[in-house]
Amino acid sequence: MDVRELLEGVKNQSVNIEEAEQYLKELPYQNLGFCRLDHHRALRNGFGEVIYCEGKATEHLVKIYQSFQARRENVLGTRASQEQYQAVKAAVPEVLYDSLGRTLKLQYEKPQLTGEVAVCTAGTSDIPVAEEAAQTAEFFGTYVNRIYDVGVAGIHRLLEKTEEIRRANCVVAIAGMEGALGSVVAGLVERPVIAVPTSVGYGANLHGISALLTMLNSCAEGLAVVNIDNGFGAGYMAAQINRLGVEGGRR
Amino acid sequence: MDVRELLEGVKNQSVNIEEAEQYLKELPYQNLGFCRLDHHRALRNGFGEVIYCEGKATEHLVKIYQSFQARRENVLGTRASQEQYQAVKAAVPEVLYDSLGRTLKLQYEKPQLTGEVAVCTAGTSDIPVAEEAAQTAEFFGTYVNRIYDVGVAGIHRLLEKTEEIRRANCVVAIAGMEGALGSVVAGLVERPVIAVPTSVGYGANLHGISALLTMLNSCAEGLAVVNIDNGFGAGYMAAQINRLGVEGGRR
Amino acid sequence: MDVRELLEGVKNQSVNIEEAEQYLKELPYQNLGFCRLDHHRALRNGFGEVIYCEGKATEHLVKIYQSFQARRENVLGTRASQEQYQAVKAAVPEVLYDSLGRTLKLQYEKPQLTGEVAVCTAGTSDIPVAEEAAQTAEFFGTYVNRIYDVGVAGIHRLLEKTEEIRRANCVVAIAGMEGALGSVVAGLVERPVIAVPTSVGYGANLHGISALLTMLNSCAEGLAVVNIDNGFGAGYMAAQINRLGVEGGRR
Amino acid sequence: MDVRELLEGVKNQSVNIEEAEQYLKELPYQNLGFCRLDHHRALRNGFGEVIYCEGKATEHLVKIYQSFQARRENVLGTRASQEQYQAVKAAVPEVLYDSLGRTLKLQYEKPQLTGEVAVCTAGTSDIPVAEEAAQTAEFFGTYVNRIYDVGVAGIHRLLEKTEEIRRANCVVAIAGMEGALGSVVAGLVERPVIAVPTSVGYGANLHGISALLTMLNSCAEGLAVVNIDNGFGAGYMAAQINRLGVEGGRR
Amino acid sequence: MDVRELLEGVKNQSVNIEEAEQYLKELPYQNLGFCRLDHHRALRNGFGEVIYCEGKATEHLVKIYQSFQARRENVLGTRASQEQYQAVKAAVPEVLYDSLGRTLKLQYEKPQLTGEVAVCTAGTSDIPVAEEAAQTAEFFGTYVNRIYDVGVAGIHRLLEKTEEIRRANCVVAIAGMEGALGSVVAGLVERPVIAVPTSVGYGANLHGISALLTMLNSCAEGLAVVNIDNGFGAGYMAAQINRLGVEGGRR
Amino acid sequence: MDVRELLEGVKNQSVNIEEAEQYLKELPYQNLGFCRLDHHRALRNGFGEVIYCEGKATEHLVKIYQSFQARRENVLGTRASQEQYQAVKAAVPEVLYDSLGRTLKLQYEKPQLTGEVAVCTAGTSDIPVAEEAAQTAEFFGTYVNRIYDVGVAGIHRLLEKTEEIRRANCVVAIAGMEGALGSVVAGLVERPVIAVPTSVGYGANLHGISALLTMLNSCAEGLAVVNIDNGFGAGYMAAQINRLGVEGGRR
Amino acid sequence: MDVRELLEGVKNQSVNIEEAEQYLKELPYQNLGFCRLDHHRALRNGFGEVIYCEGKATEHLVKIYQSFQARRENVLGTRASQEQYQAVKAAVPEVLYDSLGRTLKLQYEKPQLTGEVAVCTAGTSDIPVAEEAAQTAEFFGTYVNRIYDVGVAGIHRLLEKTEEIRRANCVVAIAGMEGALGSVVAGLVERPVIAVPTSVGYGANLHGISALLTMLNSCAEGLAVVNIDNGFGAGYMAAQINRLGVEGGRR
Amino acid sequence: MDVRELLEGVKNQSVNIEEAEQYLKELPYQNLGFCRLDHHRALRNGFGEVIYCEGKATEHLVKIYQSFQARRENVLGTRASQEQYQAVKAAVPEVLYDSLGRTLKLQYEKPQLTGEVAVCTAGTSDIPVAEEAAQTAEFFGTYVNRIYDVGVAGIHRLLEKTEEIRRANCVVAIAGMEGALGSVVAGLVERPVIAVPTSVGYGANLHGISALLTMLNSCAEGLAVVNIDNGFGAGYMAAQINRLGVEGGRR
Repeated sequence: MDVRELLEGVKNQSVNIEEAEQYLKELPYQNLGFCRLDHHRALRNGFGEVIYCEGKATEHLVKIYQSFQARRENVLGTRASQEQYQAVKAAVPEVLYDSLGRTLKLQYEKPQLTGEVAVCTAGTSDIPVAEEAAQTAEFFGTYVNRIYDVGVAGIHRLLEKTEEIRRANCVVAIAGMEGALGSVVAGLVERPVIAVPTSVGYGANLHGISALLTMLNSCAEGLAVVNIDNGFGAGYMAAQINRLGVEGGRR
Repeated sequence: MDVRELLEGVKNQSVNIEEAEQYLKELPYQNLGFCRLDHHRALRNGFGEVIYCEGKATEHLVKIYQSFQARRENVLGTRASQEQYQAVKAAVPEVLYDSLGRTLKLQYEKPQLTGEVAVCTAGTSDIPVAEEAAQTAEFFGTYVNRIYDVGVAGIHRLLEKTEEIRRANCVVAIAGMEGALGSVVAGLVERPVIAVPTSVGYGANLHGISALLTMLNSCAEGLAVVNIDNGFGAGYMAAQINRLGVEGGRR
Repeated sequence: MDVRELLEGVKNQSVNIEEAEQYLKELPYQNLGFCRLDHHRALRNGFGEVIYCEGKATEHLVKIYQSFQARRENVLGTRASQEQYQAVKAAVPEVLYDSLGRTLKLQYEKPQLTGEVAVCTAGTSDIPVAEEAAQTAEFFGTYVNRIYDVGVAGIHRLLEKTEEIRRANCVVAIAGMEGALGSVVAGLVERPVIAVPTSVGYGANLHGISALLTMLNSCAEGLAVVNIDNGFGAGYMAAQINRLGVEGGRR
Repeated sequence: MDVRELLEGVKNQSVNIEEAEQYLKELPYQNLGFCRLDHHRALRNGFGEVIYCEGKATEHLVKIYQSFQARRENVLGTRASQEQYQAVKAAVPEVLYDSLGRTLKLQYEKPQLTGEVAVCTAGTSDIPVAEEAAQTAEFFGTYVNRIYDVGVAGIHRLLEKTEEIRRANCVVAIAGMEGALGSVVAGLVERPVIAVPTSVGYGANLHGISALLTMLNSCAEGLAVVNIDNGFGAGYMAAQINRLGVEGGRR
Repeated sequence: MDVRELLEGVKNQSVNIEEAEQYLKELPYQNLGFCRLDHHRALRNGFGEVIYCEGKATEHLVKIYQSFQARRENVLGTRASQEQYQAVKAAVPEVLYDSLGRTLKLQYEKPQLTGEVAVCTAGTSDIPVAEEAAQTAEFFGTYVNRIYDVGVAGIHRLLEKTEEIRRANCVVAIAGMEGALGSVVAGLVERPVIAVPTSVGYGANLHGISALLTMLNSCAEGLAVVNIDNGFGAGYMAAQINRLGVEGGRR
Repeated sequence: MDVRELLEGVKNQSVNIEEAEQYLKELPYQNLGFCRLDHHRALRNGFGEVIYCEGKATEHLVKIYQSFQARRENVLGTRASQEQYQAVKAAVPEVLYDSLGRTLKLQYEKPQLTGEVAVCTAGTSDIPVAEEAAQTAEFFGTYVNRIYDVGVAGIHRLLEKTEEIRRANCVVAIAGMEGALGSVVAGLVERPVIAVPTSVGYGANLHGISALLTMLNSCAEGLAVVNIDNGFGAGYMAAQINRLGVEGGRR
Repeated sequence: MDVRELLEGVKNQSVNIEEAEQYLKELPYQNLGFCRLDHHRALRNGFGEVIYCEGKATEHLVKIYQSFQARRENVLGTRASQEQYQAVKAAVPEVLYDSLGRTLKLQYEKPQLTGEVAVCTAGTSDIPVAEEAAQTAEFFGTYVNRIYDVGVAGIHRLLEKTEEIRRANCVVAIAGMEGALGSVVAGLVERPVIAVPTSVGYGANLHGISALLTMLNSCAEGLAVVNIDNGFGAGYMAAQINRLGVEGGRR
Repeated sequence: MDVRELLEGVKNQSVNIEEAEQYLKELPYQNLGFCRLDHHRALRNGFGEVIYCEGKATEHLVKIYQSFQARRENVLGTRASQEQYQAVKAAVPEVLYDSLGRTLKLQYEKPQLTGEVAVCTAGTSDIPVAEEAAQTAEFFGTYVNRIYDVGVAGIHRLLEKTEEIRRANCVVAIAGMEGALGSVVAGLVERPVIAVPTSVGYGANLHGISALLTMLNSCAEGLAVVNIDNGFGAGYMAAQINRLGVEGGRR
């Protein structure tokens, strides 16, 4: 029922004033709530919700997964620990855990993977963050091409993959230590690059601040940055961009 | 001529070995160079090049603009000073300067503006950065909707614009001081948001570091960040994303 | 006995010079000590003292609580660990522990809760800090309205609570990650807002420094900030401000 | 006209559906806007608006002051330069400038100053920030007691003023260099203290960061902090707190 | 034997050239070594050596203490752990451990304690650092007056001790959190003050950096600072200064 | 007149009660003030006061110097600019300015210089800070030995001066860039060393923070540090320590 | 087979076009790969590869070592833990572990050690980093002279070693705390010095940042710096420089 | 005359004791001084001295150059301003100034340039630092190959130069902004790479700190770093390394 229908209901007295008043009182927030749902529906519908597991009490997490199980809805948990997985699994046996990317997934219906996002890492130690990004993008229906261990200190490894990387609608470039991968990749492709600094390294890497600064100061065009180790954030935004490429947007 | 053709030429002796050797020796780099040109063509062709003017010697800048003038090619200068403008204008009278966004433009052929990018600012002091972003996006053929002075301390001003902002293929959210605009906007829309921290503020704003950190730590989904005051970077990436929405990408 | 009485006692020789000299020698410090007690009485009398438990040796803590028990006086311990609670409880069975806010309370007489302070959090992970703030304010006789999980990335959740928040004499706004809650709340209310950054987050949140900077740079009016995770400090100051609203101050 | 009246108008057909639809469509935002105005009215009505002058173009500033002049409304400009003052004065001769606090004031009707706020500084170099705070509080109808140059390195100067400082509903403590004034003051009074770090000092003062950290880490109770050199923010919040003391709040 | 004696020995042939050559070759380094020993003798003779235990392998530490035991020489270990103490005690039963100041002492001959150094702390959590300072100064023959828990948030506690503190040849002021004790003390006394920031606190105390900055920016005269938690450094320098007061220096 | 005299005056009625009351009311503060004067007398008597000129308004500074001139008292201004000097000189012709150390001195009576303080610099660019230190120490009656340009990168230059440096009651070691001078000097002498980091250098010197950190982390014993470029602070404390050596202290 | 041979094979039809096409397609990358191998061969051939063990999964590490064992090739693991050593040893018994330098070595053929590199440390706590550097340089055929515990606070210890240090083709200077060793050493020798800051220290050493800054700001000529605790990096570069000295380079 | 000769002179009485005593007293320092001269001779002889001009008083600088002119010795000034050049030129007309690299050179005898050092920059804005490096290396007799504007965002430009860069005995890699050039270059060559971060960039480049951190965290082997903008330091060390390659070192 939209506002006009309501008003006509009031006019023809099929809706009484108290009901209408209550409805209208909540309208702005319902609208906002609706928008939010609509927003989520656009990206998530058929895919499910996302839960940030780190720091959540285990009993709360179990309840959350049980509520999704009850509705047979998909849910993606990020930064889930092995212990959280064990506890959830005991209650919800169909839950799937990836110990590398630390995702904890209920997926009653698998999305068709479309488009293409390339997820690249500089080293092997960056792979956990990359898996969080890749699995997030896949959860939202994105086809992901994983291209790992192509750091700039051995530039030929990256160059060999240039054609593959260029094919993607969006590239996620993940690197710790000096964090230079993003700049080199952005110089090679014409699609947007999301750079993820990782905390891999020691000493003057300052727990990832060094790689973060590198990426923010990139002189390459077409690069934006997310928080240190934030694979989820990069995977989510890559899925948004990929969707634009797959479905088209406003012309 | 591709490699197979070349080899057949060698075999049937229409190409001699010295020529083939020379060609093959340069092949990787020509290929790489070619890719780069191709990359640029995809985004820039018909639009022109971009010059970062800050710190460039005036006489060099004049020569650069003269060379574009000679070929009647478009060029967008960023961070150009009033002095640089005066010097270039003396030699290239058709150059256009925007003192707010500090862009210095030669545009012999205007692109048709397609799609839609929303460029939002928290305050009026953020407008110079916003103009750099907007004019960059426009230079690359993007239709831009400017939504200025919608900072979160007066949240209703932003909420009034929600529908407009949601319409865009990509949103650029620009804010100094506490830099919270990006998070609120990203919570309202389903398209990717590029957040630009500005150096607007004083004291603990640390010349924009504070707003930068705010944006990197956003708990909203679908947000990535560029360097402080980097309107160009945001406008360029917004144009890339908008293009995906307008033209579609890999499906 | 004030100074004039003393001097008259000296003059009429009811007080001898040695006594008067001794009294006058201690006067400034006794006065200062007295003032301090007076200060505490004004805010704390009938409520009790506050003990910062973190880092205190367990045997010392037990003795402190036993001395309050002996005098049947109220005391509020903050940042108490589960272990400290167990040890104190063994000796002082009537002690109450809140594992969320980590408060350890002896309260022989409950204050009547007056006025109203709103304690808001951006997320659920900020609740421990919020509980420390709320329980501190309550210990000093403040009525507290808890409004949790109203972060700015889902702005409608906060807007729904606007009227409630406006009702309070003082608002405590608690947020980690990007820390933008304080700015938005301060833009919505006319009462003072005390912002508490929390260490919730990772990477570029720099253990709460990011949220702290956000709050210090707020462009909203009527906002001041306490140390990272300092729920106690915010709750105490909120109680001071609430008291002004309840009892009135200098006109 | 409230919602119930509107609905009754629809029902009894004194309001047609199109009008009602339009009204309801704008309702949430008008409501929010209204709230904001209401909020401002509560604190500011009869006092006027506040303009942050730093960085504003002179011609814009002149227009703003002319519009207030036209409505004979009060306005307080902060961080105004001598040049801005000269330009505004040429157009609006009744404007008043304070070169110490850098305020630029139009005040057609002076508020009665009520309650009491103490504005204290550690040194004489902190006085410009103090004047911004004091003049802001006065603009909003607060009686201000200035207590300058009572830094902790000569503790007796501060102690002499203890009684005066205790009398206030709220204390603003302003200090650069080591910034210890706030802690000592908060230990002496029972009212809330707003601490303002200043950029006074050199070397390891890090442009005020040192004093800011000192204040945030205060072990005294009842202290909150605003941005470096933010006299306006402290004066505004002090006026809010003072108002609670003068008018009383929710009981 | 000095150089002239040696040369005369060569001339009169009581010393042969090879011996003289060898002696002269080592002379500069022996001299330097000698100076160092001499330097140490001046301050340490009769007192013993100092060992920084933290990070030392237990077996090495045991050997070091055994060698001092063998020569019945005094030695002061700093930052010794309980485990190190146990291991050393098993081999050298006369070793003494102070678990508060974490000192591990062999003292076959106790120095007479002369002069006076006041060691003051702001809070009770600063006492371990204070004990390291006090026990170091005592090891080098200094009479130490401990004045603990006189932080500036309760300024009268400090003022009561003013006369005592003024009596000392040198004051050590130890404080964490806001670290303001040093400034207030230096304003009260005419002797040099050595300020020691401690890592006591949380959040924006940045593990002691905040207190360190406070102390470096003190506007009080006669204050110098050592590293965070460096009780040893302060105690050693206080002993040096006290010695000047006890023995007199160059006039 | 002390308290006992006063009381006896009251008793024998040579002092009336009102006078006595007024006197006693001010006593604690006069006492504190007196202590401060006494403190200053101990160090400064016959020497004069110190004025920090930087940031002081020129007309205020002139008045301050005129008031010293009127009483023919000594005064030492630090961080005085050439402009301040010109203005003061016009009013007080006998003022003396040192453009290197930026001191501005009125000295009607020169103190006899006693004891010895060595002021050492690493390079020639550190000399302005050294002169501030040396002239401050001299103003307070200290004999100063200047040993400039003995930085550790040419270690022999320093070693040649070892005997001279050892002779001093206190050493001031001033260095920018890597700031290592303090450690090496403290390893060579048995007297306290006050290290002054300077802002000399560029890039990663972080305006003196690098040298400051070096000095705070010195592994040499007997070293404390003052703020960056704080020659005055080092010179003052060196004078305090030298005085202990010259006059002796508590034994 | 080089390109010319290939082309001649095509021309004379000893190579068919498909084979040639395949070969040429991979050529640039094989070339790049070859270059990389060639680069490694120049430095490493006969010596083996390097593995960064920290953070590597144990089972992966075991496989890596087994593959080297299978080919009887040398390999140097750095930052290997005791646990990793145990696991590798179980599978590859001839592996050698150094618990000080944390290297894990398979060396079927020992290189002849030539030239000379001096590896110096300031203290004994820096030795683990020094051993990583020394063992790395030795692995690549460098003769290493270890000169430990020659920190600048006891400058004579270093000076005694001057001649030895000067003899080396390259010096590695390793220091934590104030990190001044590099400057002093670079002032004494004419060969390049590689400075390694270590994380040894506490408080204001900021986990090695202080020593790092010291070294970067050295006013000595001929000094460059690697990451905190990066013994491997220094040892590797020292081996490169030593090789130039041993074999000579381009003239 | 060495020590043995001296002693024999004493023995046979051709040298008297007073002369010998004086000679021996100065020996260690003369030796050290001599070593320093010797050190300089090894690298500098025939080339001249180096003067850091920045911050030097103009009259001092003129005198320095006049003294070199008088002896017809070479000297290289770094960071010389245009004003300094004008003043020196007036007195020493044969001085040569390079306004790009800001070097101010007297070179009566040009060294033969031997070996090869490659000086590479990422962008054109890094060229001033590169010229300081190149001209420094040339001053010390190094043949320099300048390879400018080969930043990693256009990786093919760098790859085209790979062979050239590999030819050098040492590579200097200069980059601002993200500073990634060093890592990529070090991955391509087998010679040592000296990385120079520059302050080119804005915002999160933190005046070069970002590029500095990038380079320190490089995962490429064979890379060390100098201070931000320190072209001289890199050029000097490159000349040292090149010399080893040209002349050979200890084998």
